[in-house]
Amino acid sequence: MRVGIDVGGTTVKIGFIDDYKIIHRLVVETNKDTLFDDIFIAIKKYAEDNNIDITGIGFGLPGHVSNTYIDKLPNIGIYDLDIAPIANKYFPNIDIYTTNDANAAALGELLNDKDNVKSAYMITLGTGVGGGLVIDSKVINGFHANCGEIGHIYVDFNHNYQCTCGLKGCLETVASATGIVRLANEYYNQFNTKIDKKNMTAKSILDAAKQNDELGLFILNYISESLGRAIATIELCVDVERIYIGGGVSDAGDILINRIRDYYKKYSHYAIKDLEITKAKLGNDAGMLGAAYLF
Amino acid sequence: MRVGIDVGGTTVKIGFIDDYKIIHRLVVETNKDTLFDDIFIAIKKYAEDNNIDITGIGFGLPGHVSNTYIDKLPNIGIYDLDIAPIANKYFPNIDIYTTNDANAAALGELLNDKDNVKSAYMITLGTGVGGGLVIDSKVINGFHANCGEIGHIYVDFNHNYQCTCGLKGCLETVASATGIVRLANEYYNQFNTKIDKKNMTAKSILDAAKQNDELGLFILNYISESLGRAIATIELCVDVERIYIGGGVSDAGDILINRIRDYYKKYSHYAIKDLEITKAKLGNDAGMLGAAYLF
Repeated sequence: MRVGIDVGGTTVKIGFIDDYKIIHRLVVETNKDTLFDDIFIAIKKYAEDNNIDITGIGFGLPGHVSNTYIDKLPNIGIYDLDIAPIANKYFPNIDIYTTNDANAAALGELLNDKDNVKSAYMITLGTGVGGGLVIDSKVINGFHANCGEIGHIYVDFNHNYQCTCGLKGCLETVASATGIVRLANEYYNQFNTKIDKKNMTAKSILDAAKQNDELGLFILNYISESLGRAIATIELCVDVERIYIGGGVSDAGDILINRIRDYYKKYSHYAIKDLEITKAKLGNDAGMLGAAYLF
Repeated sequence: MRVGIDVGGTTVKIGFIDDYKIIHRLVVETNKDTLFDDIFIAIKKYAEDNNIDITGIGFGLPGHVSNTYIDKLPNIGIYDLDIAPIANKYFPNIDIYTTNDANAAALGELLNDKDNVKSAYMITLGTGVGGGLVIDSKVINGFHANCGEIGHIYVDFNHNYQCTCGLKGCLETVASATGIVRLANEYYNQFNTKIDKKNMTAKSILDAAKQNDELGLFILNYISESLGRAIATIELCVDVERIYIGGGVSDAGDILINRIRDYYKKYSHYAIKDLEITKAKLGNDAGMLGAAYLF
């Protein structure tokens, strides 16, 4: 059986996976000092108790990784760590595979897609904007293990907000949860709105859009245009079969996805206008599933 | 021996290739009505006369192709044509492979690179701006066989010139040979210049830049900034190891390549600033070499 692991800032989700289905789940607390020992011990115990043969272990990790070597997992506080010797203590004959969490999620969504999709970009709209690329059903990590950092595509030449990465006008400065609140603050006094300014969140702003709130609609439109433009660019660079939109902001659902589609059609090259853009379906399970099929 | 073919608007270049070297060349005139018969007859004759065993035939074609099926080669006037039955008349047991010319050139440059490069984007600055993507030493054609159409990345939000593709502000509207002349006309009266306005070409404008002509330098700077920004975006989407800049405009050489590098450094994400951007080296041979290694 395959094991796919999604390492998060507070918990680690471990999936035992067969034929693209999660057969069993384990959850381990994220403890910086004993993280990988904790994970391998949990897997080993469950596998032994249930007489399961493990064919490989894949990780989706929240940071910069290359093969079994972790450059950094900044949210957890792990730097410069090789997983291989730790794995070797518990599973001397099993191979370990890694990628970042966005790539693992992209592969998970693709494998879960009923349409036998072979190439896709997943865009995750959360606190930041991340992405993962799959071509020929394989994760593309990139030469610098940096493939998918599409949150830093230059798209907002109207405001040129400073991004945390050091650049300005990045997609993430407007289309992330943080960016949505930033935009709403910037335009708050220019529209009729019932949004509570003191407690604004991406959710409250997009919920207001669903109620035809003027400010909410303006923000919805603005981020959809930014995303439509960015996807038009992504698609020129890689020409994938499908785009999955995931992350907390995507919970806004059809009102957001449809508007992104409209702007994509407006700004995309004529040969690729039929690209399918859909909401990601697996939520938190995507990372586990994808990680299990890195090999 | 492998055969790699670069189909151009006036001539077809056929290379017989062994161990990444072009051992022999044939040239056939591009005749719309008999194009593929002409090519296969020439190959067959040379192979028989010289007792050469052919292992496969690859094509780089100037248009939209998918497997052996040609959707369109607009500059030649060929539409909706399957090469397979024509090939079968002359080479019933040899497989035929195709991609577009930009992809073939990208693979050719990568294979010719002494540094054992595995992934690259080639950008061709000619009448338009084209591109080709190679990952893990394989050409990426894309779901719509449209991968590499990076000339239509939206980058010129200053002028928003109308592009032939129907969009506005495409990279191609400023960074192609045509775009360079367009820009020079737009800014001609704003700078001290010795460039002959009536006979301006991309070459005369970039040559003037080398002589420190004010207008020439302004244009050089403007297109380098546009290209630097576009490459920064491309690299976020795919994270390749190297960028090759080819096409007639790239003959401007170091003055152009160095300035593109400067702007790339300015606009690129911190994790990928060390990307190597180099001038393509093979010129017209890149397409033949790449086409021969599609299989």
